[in-house]
Amino acid sequence: MTYPLRTTIRVRTYELDSFGHVNNAHYLHYLEEARSEFLRQMGLSFNDFAAHGVQLVIVEANLRYLRAARYGDELVIVGRTRDVRPASAWIDYVLTDAATGQVVVNAETKGAFLDARTFKPCRAPEAFRTAFAAHTGEDSP
Amino acid sequence: MTYPLRTTIRVRTYELDSFGHVNNAHYLHYLEEARSEFLRQMGLSFNDFAAHGVQLVIVEANLRYLRAARYGDELVIVGRTRDVRPASAWIDYVLTDAATGQVVVNAETKGAFLDARTFKPCRAPEAFRTAFAAHTGEDSP
Amino acid sequence: MTYPLRTTIRVRTYELDSFGHVNNAHYLHYLEEARSEFLRQMGLSFNDFAAHGVQLVIVEANLRYLRAARYGDELVIVGRTRDVRPASAWIDYVLTDAATGQVVVNAETKGAFLDARTFKPCRAPEAFRTAFAAHTGEDSP
Amino acid sequence: MTYPLRTTIRVRTYELDSFGHVNNAHYLHYLEEARSEFLRQMGLSFNDFAAHGVQLVIVEANLRYLRAARYGDELVIVGRTRDVRPASAWIDYVLTDAATGQVVVNAETKGAFLDARTFKPCRAPEAFRTAFAAHTGEDSP
Repeated sequence: MTYPLRTTIRVRTYELDSFGHVNNAHYLHYLEEARSEFLRQMGLSFNDFAAHGVQLVIVEANLRYLRAARYGDELVIVGRTRDVRPASAWIDYVLTDAATGQVVVNAETKGAFLDARTFKPCRAPEAFRTAFAAHTGEDSP
Repeated sequence: MTYPLRTTIRVRTYELDSFGHVNNAHYLHYLEEARSEFLRQMGLSFNDFAAHGVQLVIVEANLRYLRAARYGDELVIVGRTRDVRPASAWIDYVLTDAATGQVVVNAETKGAFLDARTFKPCRAPEAFRTAFAAHTGEDSP
Repeated sequence: MTYPLRTTIRVRTYELDSFGHVNNAHYLHYLEEARSEFLRQMGLSFNDFAAHGVQLVIVEANLRYLRAARYGDELVIVGRTRDVRPASAWIDYVLTDAATGQVVVNAETKGAFLDARTFKPCRAPEAFRTAFAAHTGEDSP
Repeated sequence: MTYPLRTTIRVRTYELDSFGHVNNAHYLHYLEEARSEFLRQMGLSFNDFAAHGVQLVIVEANLRYLRAARYGDELVIVGRTRDVRPASAWIDYVLTDAATGQVVVNAETKGAFLDARTFKPCRAPEAFRTAFAAHTGEDSP
């Protein structure tokens, strides 16, 4: 099982909670940042959403927290798409501590395409479907 | 199916993202705030954790986003415990828009008890187990 | 010296930093939330900005931190306008701990009106100037 | 006038507000992250605070916002110490857009040393005073 998408993110001081480690909520922010970079790696950009009049909205998110991350930690986030459908797709993420290689968080998010004017579900533009289908991590080059 | 725990939270301006609605990550913050209030309603407090030398850490979180929330929305968050085990327990949450009664987010988090010194999993203190077991929403008064 | 504007805000768990108190940055969020409520009390709303094609942008902020705030603290935020000019105005804020009456933070922000299309400075709509001028805390009822 | 301290920070998606640019509050987070890096460049670390039983707390912050920053912008943050006193010191910051060289924010924060047990003001440990005095940007090498 391969993950064709990859980025890194460093934990900043202001992302710690009162226990001194990255708060569980903050990982969804890291996934958002990773997703933005993954889209770029897939050849897509925020401008493509505007150009096609669509939004990609998170409708489901599942996370397993295995280890704590702390200030200064470099996290490697790899990803792949999954279950690419006409109007939705999943992304899988694995966050590991770059220093130790240990998994910090496993996560998956389901994104749904919405018409940017009506906010109703809509079919993904062809460019998106093709890009998502090419990064499932099994058949993608 | 009843939810014996209940609190409300109002969306603040600074909790909106660039789309003008509450960001998906922010709901985990709302769950944290609700959990803190739920513990109080169960007769527990942050001081009890310190007194018993334990921490309650989120090890799993699953969320389904059904509707967007916006600035000023009052969210009702009801909750109940589930699968109360010696060293862990789940909490179920339903967030509804107070104005419309419509569900905004369904969520569940699994908390595990850790020894506050060793950060190793440990059994929940008796007072916690009893309190969690009394708020499963089926048998609780 | 009177402060004709007033709101309260309660510190939430997720607003604490790794020292266990409200982070210095977070007070600017509290000011934003207070400002939104102050505008409402002045008879203005976010929709008025859109209707007039203007934005009110913070161009200067000065804060003095006198005491720490902690989880659950209720903060009273009083405010007044100052130096109301054609294209800008200051707001003064005093944040006190509701339980003790002690000042937590003194702050002031300067807002400038921008044309929402060109993002260039512009004159405040009459309704805004009148509302701001009526809440300086000296002549206002 | 030179700034012997320097770091960079990239704007992340989740740091935008509902206007699509970095919220005014968030710059205080950037200053915190910069300060942490500046301390490292001065030869100090968070562990030094613990070892000496002191905390460095922000007691005043002043910011001027000149331009908006947006997603993906790389910000260069330069800094220098100022008015280094026995129990406090100022830091000046200039944040510029790396792509254009234009100033985004000018800021200054005053930090005070507190005894970590009593939370009362205390004299800075010698190592801190020396390090701060060596980075005022005028005499420092």
